[in-house]
Amino acid sequence: MKILRWRLLNLLIIATLTAVLSSVSFAKEKVYKWKLATTWGPTLSPFIDAPKNLSKMVEEMSNGRLIIRVDASNKHKSAFGILDMVKGGQYDMGHSASYYWKGKDINTMPLTTMPFGMTTPEQYAWFYHGGGLELMQKVYKKHKVLSFPGGNTGNQMGGWFKKEINSVDDLKGLKMRIPGFAGEVMAKLGLTVTNIAPGELYTSLERGTIDALEWVGPGMDIKMGFHKIAPYYYTGWHEPSTELQYLVNQKKFNKLPKDLQQILLTAIKVTAYDMYIQNYDMSAESWSKISTDYPDIKIKTFPKPVLDAMKKANAELLVEKTKDQPLLKEILDSQAAYQKKVREWTKMSDYLYLKDNL
Amino acid sequence: MKILRWRLLNLLIIATLTAVLSSVSFAKEKVYKWKLATTWGPTLSPFIDAPKNLSKMVEEMSNGRLIIRVDASNKHKSAFGILDMVKGGQYDMGHSASYYWKGKDINTMPLTTMPFGMTTPEQYAWFYHGGGLELMQKVYKKHKVLSFPGGNTGNQMGGWFKKEINSVDDLKGLKMRIPGFAGEVMAKLGLTVTNIAPGELYTSLERGTIDALEWVGPGMDIKMGFHKIAPYYYTGWHEPSTELQYLVNQKKFNKLPKDLQQILLTAIKVTAYDMYIQNYDMSAESWSKISTDYPDIKIKTFPKPVLDAMKKANAELLVEKTKDQPLLKEILDSQAAYQKKVREWTKMSDYLYLKDNL
Repeated sequence: MKILRWRLLNLLIIATLTAVLSSVSFAKEKVYKWKLATTWGPTLSPFIDAPKNLSKMVEEMSNGRLIIRVDASNKHKSAFGILDMVKGGQYDMGHSASYYWKGKDINTMPLTTMPFGMTTPEQYAWFYHGGGLELMQKVYKKHKVLSFPGGNTGNQMGGWFKKEINSVDDLKGLKMRIPGFAGEVMAKLGLTVTNIAPGELYTSLERGTIDALEWVGPGMDIKMGFHKIAPYYYTGWHEPSTELQYLVNQKKFNKLPKDLQQILLTAIKVTAYDMYIQNYDMSAESWSKISTDYPDIKIKTFPKPVLDAMKKANAELLVEKTKDQPLLKEILDSQAAYQKKVREWTKMSDYLYLKDNL
Repeated sequence: MKILRWRLLNLLIIATLTAVLSSVSFAKEKVYKWKLATTWGPTLSPFIDAPKNLSKMVEEMSNGRLIIRVDASNKHKSAFGILDMVKGGQYDMGHSASYYWKGKDINTMPLTTMPFGMTTPEQYAWFYHGGGLELMQKVYKKHKVLSFPGGNTGNQMGGWFKKEINSVDDLKGLKMRIPGFAGEVMAKLGLTVTNIAPGELYTSLERGTIDALEWVGPGMDIKMGFHKIAPYYYTGWHEPSTELQYLVNQKKFNKLPKDLQQILLTAIKVTAYDMYIQNYDMSAESWSKISTDYPDIKIKTFPKPVLDAMKKANAELLVEKTKDQPLLKEILDSQAAYQKKVREWTKMSDYLYLKDNL
């Protein structure tokens, strides 16, 4: 009897210790393997670098407990299906741009950038201190995903033109590749707006199938080679602060332990800011190369009457679009009010400083 | 014999399991308790918010394995001894500004901001892509500390003046509180430059002990109340992008496990960017209040001859200071070359955009 009790007791102790040990090591070392789908091709710097850097950072900070595989568009073959794939759970995360979903949900449009809208620091201040992030979550709640700023291009150039634009009349009948809401504004001004696959843009512009096109800015335009065939490079009006987007499946996020949630959110925030700075450097570097190799390229600003016509068309389109769209109106009103206030500071700080130091 | 063997075997298994279990939980849960000393008082937003947010973020991301206590200046009573305390190991980390150490090591001066230097996104691009961070580590290596960008104020205002400045002569004999290198520039222009404790600034300006003073910008100036007694608010020239600084004791950093190192570095980077955006919002909000409550305050830019005289004095002082200072010269040359390149991009992007959208 005594021996049996002793044996039983020992077995119990061993069983308990084994259970505790395995549960501890299980809890400490559970590895979460996530997949992230991006709209971008595998080498499209700096866009693709944001999620790639996020993946590396998260793995290091979590000591290998959160692994995020980044799939470029050539892998999942659905560059513009990111929201659906994250919503449906095929992917845990996505990296794209909110205004790509405006056909599905018009409220997603102003969360990237708006014509004549805020600059990058102004818009980050709106997101993080002016109610912008809360409005973004409100928009995406019904899609059951979380959405966060995902990296900024800074001010985008107005595009490459083969002819100089001196009046609104010069725009009429022009064939231009300019997608999205800015394309709608241009159409109102009498341009024929087309969309052409990126791979065919250079040839289309060279052969005169189109007279002008808008891409991003020198940092990303340089590889496309447009500077070799169009001598006028117009400054931007339509995308003053294009913010990309991280999407996270809400249910998957909720299943992460608190520390991994915080690691993920921090990596999201820092890689977004980092991309802005990376593209600032790339733009400076690329413009320096372009302007050295092609000294005849002219930086032009659209004349005031042209800009005024664009502003008028933009305002009219927004009135149409906000009809019966209370949330869209709420977002645009919030942006307009914040921009009015913050622009005063931008003017007296960076703008007036730059004016005397160009 | 059989019973004894059985007992011994059991004891051995229990002992082994207990050892493994306790070593696992020990390795996983070692807690690093750090202390961080700041130059700032306990409520000096947004400066103090950067290290406070860092502490919170690091604790959450590390699941309590890295705890950083933030001591404000009222605690350690050594606002300008941060570098020494981190170097000496009394504190593991610090939060301050690099140019405070220019008396000890002139090379630390240009790592905060320079008169007529880069704007905030330009300077971040220099730090992270133009070789700036590497030069910063080179400067601090001999102090055995690591140094990182710690939050940016954006463009600082040129100061509050009781009288309008229309010429270089108007500056001569003026008594002004403007510390640091900018003070040396002003002294060269004939001003009497003084330093006065922050708590006495308002009374000094009110009673005419000084005629003008420089502080930060509307976000931080509003609490000081200068707008109630000085009607001219001049735009900035001397600190276009003041970057604060995190200091980390090199030995202590080396002792952290890799994942905690990465968590710390990420929190450092993101809280720095965040402070820039926080102060952008605070400046916009505070200027809106000041200009509504005190509509007679005039935003003024120094006339071109005054700015030209400042630029000349600045350039002359830099020639003096770089004599026999090869590392200082290397940093200033690196900044000047980068600024020349990046300013072209700033001009064609944000500047020309703002010009048409003020």
